[in-house]
Amino acid sequence: MSKIKVTIWNEFRHEKSNDFVKSIYPNGIHQQIADGISNVDFDILTATLDEPEHGLTDNVIENTDVMLWWGHCAHGEVRDDIVEKVHKRVLEGMGLIVLHSGHFSKIFKRLMGTNCSLKWREEAEKERLWNIEPYHPITEGIGDFIELPNTEMYGERYDIPNPDKLIFISWFEGGEVFRSGVTYSRGHGKIFYFRPGHETYPIYHNQEILKVISNAVRWAKPQLFREDVCPMSPALEEIKSTGDFGRAGIEQNSEGEAL
Amino acid sequence: MSKIKVTIWNEFRHEKSNDFVKSIYPNGIHQQIADGISNVDFDILTATLDEPEHGLTDNVIENTDVMLWWGHCAHGEVRDDIVEKVHKRVLEGMGLIVLHSGHFSKIFKRLMGTNCSLKWREEAEKERLWNIEPYHPITEGIGDFIELPNTEMYGERYDIPNPDKLIFISWFEGGEVFRSGVTYSRGHGKIFYFRPGHETYPIYHNQEILKVISNAVRWAKPQLFREDVCPMSPALEEIKSTGDFGRAGIEQNSEGEAL
Amino acid sequence: MSKIKVTIWNEFRHEKSNDFVKSIYPNGIHQQIADGISNVDFDILTATLDEPEHGLTDNVIENTDVMLWWGHCAHGEVRDDIVEKVHKRVLEGMGLIVLHSGHFSKIFKRLMGTNCSLKWREEAEKERLWNIEPYHPITEGIGDFIELPNTEMYGERYDIPNPDKLIFISWFEGGEVFRSGVTYSRGHGKIFYFRPGHETYPIYHNQEILKVISNAVRWAKPQLFREDVCPMSPALEEIKSTGDFGRAGIEQNSEGEAL
Amino acid sequence: MSKIKVTIWNEFRHEKSNDFVKSIYPNGIHQQIADGISNVDFDILTATLDEPEHGLTDNVIENTDVMLWWGHCAHGEVRDDIVEKVHKRVLEGMGLIVLHSGHFSKIFKRLMGTNCSLKWREEAEKERLWNIEPYHPITEGIGDFIELPNTEMYGERYDIPNPDKLIFISWFEGGEVFRSGVTYSRGHGKIFYFRPGHETYPIYHNQEILKVISNAVRWAKPQLFREDVCPMSPALEEIKSTGDFGRAGIEQNSEGEAL
Repeated sequence: MSKIKVTIWNEFRHEKSNDFVKSIYPNGIHQQIADGISNVDFDILTATLDEPEHGLTDNVIENTDVMLWWGHCAHGEVRDDIVEKVHKRVLEGMGLIVLHSGHFSKIFKRLMGTNCSLKWREEAEKERLWNIEPYHPITEGIGDFIELPNTEMYGERYDIPNPDKLIFISWFEGGEVFRSGVTYSRGHGKIFYFRPGHETYPIYHNQEILKVISNAVRWAKPQLFREDVCPMSPALEEIKSTGDFGRAGIEQNSEGEAL
Repeated sequence: MSKIKVTIWNEFRHEKSNDFVKSIYPNGIHQQIADGISNVDFDILTATLDEPEHGLTDNVIENTDVMLWWGHCAHGEVRDDIVEKVHKRVLEGMGLIVLHSGHFSKIFKRLMGTNCSLKWREEAEKERLWNIEPYHPITEGIGDFIELPNTEMYGERYDIPNPDKLIFISWFEGGEVFRSGVTYSRGHGKIFYFRPGHETYPIYHNQEILKVISNAVRWAKPQLFREDVCPMSPALEEIKSTGDFGRAGIEQNSEGEAL
Repeated sequence: MSKIKVTIWNEFRHEKSNDFVKSIYPNGIHQQIADGISNVDFDILTATLDEPEHGLTDNVIENTDVMLWWGHCAHGEVRDDIVEKVHKRVLEGMGLIVLHSGHFSKIFKRLMGTNCSLKWREEAEKERLWNIEPYHPITEGIGDFIELPNTEMYGERYDIPNPDKLIFISWFEGGEVFRSGVTYSRGHGKIFYFRPGHETYPIYHNQEILKVISNAVRWAKPQLFREDVCPMSPALEEIKSTGDFGRAGIEQNSEGEAL
Repeated sequence: MSKIKVTIWNEFRHEKSNDFVKSIYPNGIHQQIADGISNVDFDILTATLDEPEHGLTDNVIENTDVMLWWGHCAHGEVRDDIVEKVHKRVLEGMGLIVLHSGHFSKIFKRLMGTNCSLKWREEAEKERLWNIEPYHPITEGIGDFIELPNTEMYGERYDIPNPDKLIFISWFEGGEVFRSGVTYSRGHGKIFYFRPGHETYPIYHNQEILKVISNAVRWAKPQLFREDVCPMSPALEEIKSTGDFGRAGIEQNSEGEAL
């Protein structure tokens, strides 16, 4: 079995500008995750905002099976044409794992079609992620819950579509709940949003969190890549009902535009 | 009970440029639907592409409970800023009913997050829409199936997200099937995609098709309109777990951008 | 519009045997709910375990649009033949609202097909039900959350099928979360499970809880009642592909048994 | 990786009593499927109705990862206590693949909670199963559709719950459609219903049908087996809100019965 080609994308700004963040993620969140999920089955690449084309050249995108996405303070700086390419590739089959504040990334909002807004608070409170689907590949090896001593709070209502599967629900010390792990499929691609991971807490050093991410990579691995088409498709059976209409219509090309 | 404010949007091009289409819809598809679903409970407005702002001024959008959308050959001409406003309003609560070739409209693709592509063929063949959920408000008064003697074919795979409810599945004479009626909720808005309705067939003269559209308008009526927010939300319970972290983080504004 | 015929079923045992419970629900939980949701649109009947046929005669079942179900200590005493009738009626279209410890009732387990088990604890702790779907008829008039000062805890994993809609998620003071409001459709009937309501807390005196129940009754109102059939159905189109097979098969009756 | 332990259950009556069926499946449908999906990854056992305990002893059930179920004319003869054991095992994690007329089996109806009824006709007509989810493990290696020259018809409305994923929709020559491949999870078990397979057509000799069944076995392989519990669960956080209530309640055992 060939390796899963993983690309970990990170905004990589806080880690350069803030000493506290740097102390937690000296080589960036992307590198910490890369090290943390490193595995004989994974072929891992990283890419960051300030690289040319954000590190997401056509070649990189085409050679990615599963992409991870972490962003926070610079969602607006991600180029629309690159978001477009990533979006296209997810619909063709690429897996996408969106982490924490990535809920507000252009790519996630575009795939969901909703605002992806939520309540939030940064008080370093306790979070407990309850495992709602212990049978699911994403929770393989995870117990009843994962406890994080200090986290930023995200609370409902989280403006997302009804998920295919609700995998984790978080309890927060301050009184909120949150759908912290949700799966979707869009086009031929599988998507997992996973809440944990603020830049000011060492959450990506937590072995259970890394285990979930690692499981999600395996789960999101594409079965196939397929380009989008909208083909005129000849009849498979004889048609006898045309009546007075025949082919009176206006011809349509594959983009649905009249010819 | 106050009336439901319905805005029927139509591209209104084929009806002006093609005599055959004009013979079926002399006043446009929008007017035929408006007449067909006319009802003491509905307060109906129409709007078309070539009006200023496509007829969708801020005032019209704000005063719409449920919008219908028909487009085909000029999806690309719909202004992005107006699509943006309609999208925002759906997420705030406005109902949206997307008809036939509206599957490729900017607004539908944006709400779905997918390509919304399909197979198609124009041979005036027979279609039979099977009623999968007879208990649903959208199928009130509809029997086991609706039969259309001559239609354009749309076939699977239809590239849409898993619907909340699959209401109709079409059988086509030429050998295909299609998920012809599907519901979604996005934000606070309810969405119904309904396949029937090509410009070269008198489908919006069919009483059963009009009944389904009429039912869908009632179903999609908003319960509330609510603007999107992403609020910092103070704790509802005492927080004692902050440990060494305190509020070390980087402040975030309501757009998720760092301050 | 005709009234909605509501039947509130209650086990009605704790209220008779326990003085503390009696002090909260002197006329039984059923009567408190009946008084609490009393409304010009509802025609309310109550029925209890120790009545003949548990108060659920054929006539009562046939004349019920929406049934509420509360049971706890005597699920095992509910007659299987009556559960069978209620199950049949839900599939024909009757709405069913299952309350609190009704999660372990025969009728709910039968409709779900799962164990419906959960974690629980009785420490009179605080609960906060977060409103996940403010646009939904069941949450009409309900704010961001409902707070209950003292409740029994129910915790995940709750062994239920993926709900159609997740309406409420509960936060518990002791550290758990729970899917406290979930909707399903089964057959032609709509089902709502709503967690709040232990016998030792005055939860059915809470106006917000009563409002949710009242909303749910309106939501669950049947559109139609339809008896189950499994008909042999003549072809709608000409069949030319029978090849060597003809009707070689074994005849099947409407129960799927060979003749 | 250890082998997947597969048990193929077959009613095995038509093949013994009807010469035409016997000519198609001389060793029974179970043996034909066993041969057809035989694979180095699978450890296959068969079991039939007329064996002691229907071949489903405790030992067999406990040593099954994925069970296949084919029945038709003798659903009523399957012992309730054995259905109970299979049901329990699915909820604990065992995969279940229900074939064709198994839609009316006790085990499928019990897991679905609905009537599982449908329209049907036996005219040896053509069927085309459209592949709705090409990215799904169950459709690995399958093209746009599978064509079967002669089949029994099953038509909508099929009385099943909203599936997790709709994998195949069938087109029938006689004019109907059917949700022919649907997935569910119940408890910790994964379930796939797959329509093809009447006893009077050589459908289990079709390599694409066998491929789908084989894929489904891999998909339904359990991640874990877990016994059902309903535990009293001590608080994870300090509770301070008990007010006047304390533990006034009536004690409940793990079956939810009062003590």
